[in-house]
Amino acid sequence: MAIETKPPTKPRAPVLGAPPASRRYQSLGYRAKRILLGPALETSQLIHERISKRVALAVFSSDPISSTAYATEEILLVLVTAAAATWLTLPIALGIAGLLLLLVVSYRQVIDAYPSAGGAYVVSRDNFGNVVASVAGAALLIDYVLTVAVSVSGGVAAMVSLAPDALEHWAVEIAIGFVLLLAWGNLRGLREAGRIFAIPTYLYVVSMAAVVAIGIWQSAFGDLGDVAYTATDQAKLAHAGEALGSVTVFLILRAFAGGTTALTGVEAVSNGVSAFRRPEARNAKTTLLIMAFIMGSLFIGISYLAAHLGIRPFASGFPTVVAQLGRHVLGAGTVGQAAFVVYQAATLGILVLAANTSFSGFPLLASFAAGDALLPRQLRKRGHRLVYSNGIIVLSAVAIFLVIAYQAKVSDLIPLYAIGVVISFTLSQAGMTVRHLRLRERGWRYGLVVNGVGGLVTFVVLWVIVIGKFRDGAWLVVVAVPLIVWLLLRTQRTYRSEVAELKVEASHRLAPPKPRHEVVVLVEDLDRATIGALQYARQLNPLSITAVHIAIDPDHARELATLWSKVHLPIPLEIVDAPDRNLLATVEEVVAELVRPDTEVSVLIPKRTFSSAWRRVLHDRTAEGVFKVLGEMDNVNVTIVPFRLGRSSAPAVPAPGAARSG
Amino acid sequence: MAIETKPPTKPRAPVLGAPPASRRYQSLGYRAKRILLGPALETSQLIHERISKRVALAVFSSDPISSTAYATEEILLVLVTAAAATWLTLPIALGIAGLLLLLVVSYRQVIDAYPSAGGAYVVSRDNFGNVVASVAGAALLIDYVLTVAVSVSGGVAAMVSLAPDALEHWAVEIAIGFVLLLAWGNLRGLREAGRIFAIPTYLYVVSMAAVVAIGIWQSAFGDLGDVAYTATDQAKLAHAGEALGSVTVFLILRAFAGGTTALTGVEAVSNGVSAFRRPEARNAKTTLLIMAFIMGSLFIGISYLAAHLGIRPFASGFPTVVAQLGRHVLGAGTVGQAAFVVYQAATLGILVLAANTSFSGFPLLASFAAGDALLPRQLRKRGHRLVYSNGIIVLSAVAIFLVIAYQAKVSDLIPLYAIGVVISFTLSQAGMTVRHLRLRERGWRYGLVVNGVGGLVTFVVLWVIVIGKFRDGAWLVVVAVPLIVWLLLRTQRTYRSEVAELKVEASHRLAPPKPRHEVVVLVEDLDRATIGALQYARQLNPLSITAVHIAIDPDHARELATLWSKVHLPIPLEIVDAPDRNLLATVEEVVAELVRPDTEVSVLIPKRTFSSAWRRVLHDRTAEGVFKVLGEMDNVNVTIVPFRLGRSSAPAVPAPGAARSG
Repeated sequence: MAIETKPPTKPRAPVLGAPPASRRYQSLGYRAKRILLGPALETSQLIHERISKRVALAVFSSDPISSTAYATEEILLVLVTAAAATWLTLPIALGIAGLLLLLVVSYRQVIDAYPSAGGAYVVSRDNFGNVVASVAGAALLIDYVLTVAVSVSGGVAAMVSLAPDALEHWAVEIAIGFVLLLAWGNLRGLREAGRIFAIPTYLYVVSMAAVVAIGIWQSAFGDLGDVAYTATDQAKLAHAGEALGSVTVFLILRAFAGGTTALTGVEAVSNGVSAFRRPEARNAKTTLLIMAFIMGSLFIGISYLAAHLGIRPFASGFPTVVAQLGRHVLGAGTVGQAAFVVYQAATLGILVLAANTSFSGFPLLASFAAGDALLPRQLRKRGHRLVYSNGIIVLSAVAIFLVIAYQAKVSDLIPLYAIGVVISFTLSQAGMTVRHLRLRERGWRYGLVVNGVGGLVTFVVLWVIVIGKFRDGAWLVVVAVPLIVWLLLRTQRTYRSEVAELKVEASHRLAPPKPRHEVVVLVEDLDRATIGALQYARQLNPLSITAVHIAIDPDHARELATLWSKVHLPIPLEIVDAPDRNLLATVEEVVAELVRPDTEVSVLIPKRTFSSAWRRVLHDRTAEGVFKVLGEMDNVNVTIVPFRLGRSSAPAVPAPGAARSG
Repeated sequence: MAIETKPPTKPRAPVLGAPPASRRYQSLGYRAKRILLGPALETSQLIHERISKRVALAVFSSDPISSTAYATEEILLVLVTAAAATWLTLPIALGIAGLLLLLVVSYRQVIDAYPSAGGAYVVSRDNFGNVVASVAGAALLIDYVLTVAVSVSGGVAAMVSLAPDALEHWAVEIAIGFVLLLAWGNLRGLREAGRIFAIPTYLYVVSMAAVVAIGIWQSAFGDLGDVAYTATDQAKLAHAGEALGSVTVFLILRAFAGGTTALTGVEAVSNGVSAFRRPEARNAKTTLLIMAFIMGSLFIGISYLAAHLGIRPFASGFPTVVAQLGRHVLGAGTVGQAAFVVYQAATLGILVLAANTSFSGFPLLASFAAGDALLPRQLRKRGHRLVYSNGIIVLSAVAIFLVIAYQAKVSDLIPLYAIGVVISFTLSQAGMTVRHLRLRERGWRYGLVVNGVGGLVTFVVLWVIVIGKFRDGAWLVVVAVPLIVWLLLRTQRTYRSEVAELKVEASHRLAPPKPRHEVVVLVEDLDRATIGALQYARQLNPLSITAVHIAIDPDHARELATLWSKVHLPIPLEIVDAPDRNLLATVEEVVAELVRPDTEVSVLIPKRTFSSAWRRVLHDRTAEGVFKVLGEMDNVNVTIVPFRLGRSSAPAVPAPGAARSG
């Protein structure tokens, strides 16, 4: 027989569309997918959309700008523990705004240097290599998950603030519902491009700006007094009735650490430069500036008003500081009430949208990391609707876990959140510093100063957060990052060793067939299924064929032996005792005895297949069990030889264009 | 190559014991079994124990005698709905005792005729054939399940009666606990033979007889007055405050139907004749007589006293009538209280023991029926500890379902219970009648009268129960029996058609190999696993070998094609587009195109096996999925060609005595 080298044939015409979809193989899971997610998309439908600055601002800014909905509350939560310390809110907010400015200047450098995709992961990998890149990767992965958990919890807090008494006890359930909704939408292949996405962001910015402006105007020229708490409410305030401490440096640092949560999401723009219209870098840099300006003004405005109007956070988190501000400024009139509902809806909207950004960021980063063998390669596979489904599922699962574990409480989740963000800031800036020193491109001195200072400051801030929030939960991230890094690197080492072990050189030649080929046919009964397997065994033309029966029931074994000798089969039957009726163990032993270096061993399992579920119920799954055990053995080839039963009563759907014999 | 007919080789020396058990293949489930149930028993350990009359009386009588613990209550529950009707309790009990006598006489005939195992199923099959036998089988299966549900619920009622307020709300949980305990004990292979089993039966008989005797003595010669109910208790009595009806024939029939539950379990002795010492039939008949005498006296005594002392059942069922009787007769003194606890414990004991008889009866009957192909053949398989494990599991599951559905309430379960019993009485007696007419053995005329009358009376009783209890739940059994019969017969038809389809005649010869043998190697990557599969393909020496790659990722497909052409492989690679990334459907289509009557098709799947769980996590289960889909196709032989990875870091345990190559 001559088998010749042929060049690979051209791809066939796409099969899709030719046979009706209903005839194709569809497992139960596949059918569920079709119903839940719609029909599968073809690979060729993968497109790369570009977005305008206006839409980009909405898409990328939802994450950073939405953090103004809870950042001030985090500062206040620390300051209320000390007597008369809330006036510090504004100075701290100003400090964080200054840090924001520094970051924006630094990130403009990153965008110039990495115009395609300049996240901390890419910058670190490029400038520090594998290990540091995996630290950045771990920090980013943690951050994406926390963005979902914090933003959804924050959105639910905004919703609950509309009617705390009615909704308070359903916060966790509502939050899980939102995560599932986002997961479903993204598994279906919800595109970011939709202009609809711009609405909540702009609505939030406009309504928040209006509240801040009205608030400042009225408190300066109008009659807007302090927020008054009833006695009942006062008992519900955070740290109510506790002995008040004094203002210490540590307190200020902790408040600052709480407020840094406002910085989350700043990196988003630099991650998505490639999504902008040409000239990408310039448009991205402009977007970054506008975003920082909006965010900074809102944050400072909210912080000023909250402190000035004497707003205090509630222990339960409901209503939120921002909701209290809105209700106080907008008043109790009908118009004010209506405006308040819109304001809260906008807050919910931007926070859910912020969570949604993680649903595009996390799976993309995970697929990058899986491409570098740092994560399981299942994360690289495009799913039913061309999105990275596995990444979406992992993200949703971990986010739901966090929402349940922290009972959808934003202030409990925050200590975990900022660290990851600041780690990636630090690594980006440090990476850029190294890059400037290495490449010395035009303007490198300016860049060196900007990124050097940026890296240094964020490094200091990192320690401020770790120390300030350590006992509040930051320790968890301090433990998790090295653990995840270790897992990532171990995964990479494993994949690489596998690739090395499996590698085929161009000089590789097929070895000649082994001198011996022994075939074992496992026999339960002497029936037509067994006959079929014996016939197939002869087709393989081996050195020897043995039929083996494992005697679970001695009476049955005797009957089988009698029938075997009556039918004059040219193949001997060997009966092996299994006194403990452990079929799988005995089969494994029998087969193991045949394995030798010069022998190819094939085990044939006759399998009765059934055309109806009813028939399948009436039989046990022995063949499957045996197959599974032998399939795990080295140097044993296991073959299923099928025999279909019950064709007359319920014929199987024939495969298109194929003739079949019975 | 010459393959000759050889007689089956002698069984090898038993493998058990040779290699240490720890090295044998043990799945997770198997290890769990070892821990829960102890080490596996060898088939040769199967023994048939014979038991003495004294032990037999205890074992077989627990079921019938235990029914005296609730039968009187069932009569009372009907009679209390009419004014001044409770005096009818004794007459009705006497009527049922008369029926018992008739049954005993009839069953002595059955024991003579079927000394090995004479249940309704065997008698019906022998005299009426398949369909009637399956009616008897259905009735018996229902009965066994209800014996467990009713007896355990009754036992729990006895336990709860000790402290109704504390235990009432835990009745269902306690009942489920007992069923699980019985299931566990029986899966471990608890033997009936244990003399321990005799203790609860004798204790119950003695203590109940004592209570009855003391009660009669004291009410005749002492100062034992009627039971007095407090106002609180009166409100809790069954039908308290309802308008009382008058005594009608229908009322009496319903009360009688309720009381027939006393007859359950009478058939047990005739089912287990083979377990008696020689002369089996005589010993069994004697045992039957003694049992009937004990049971009848206790039942009449309890019924007399309950009516005489004005005992009324509670709506909740707690405390039971029998418990009220015991407490009243034994008094409130310390000795009386202690005696009462023993009396209730004995009641619990005998009822749990009665439930246990089903755990030997049901799996045995199910294995008989499975032997006749009426039930799935998995029920014939002896499990880990040589018991019919699947039968035990099915029985426990259905019993637990009933306990939950009926909230462990005996009086709600009873209407379902008696019908099945009386169906099997009727069929046994009718079968015996036919047999007497057919065989005309010595004394057949006497037998004809006895069984004829027995059959007729039980048939009338059957209708009394069906009509009297129809709306209380009997309708469920009226629906269930035909349904189960239909399922049994359908199962039998299916198995028989399979046997016919699979049957091999002694004249059968193996067909010659097919003229064409095409081998398809499914290729994901060109690596050493693929090379291994290609080498194995050449070992099979087919007409043609094709390597097929399903292009899920077009980029990867291009890379593969390039590498393939670089390595000069003598096998062509065909790349098939899968635009919707549905690997399984595409593989199925590709393979289906090859299937022709004159062609043997083999599909080889290179499978990377991993020696550590960690490595397995890092890979998806594509090979398994493909295998499953192709394994369901007709005329396609699917082979797994293994390639083990990561051997150096964690070598697999080598099989004993086998050399292996890498």
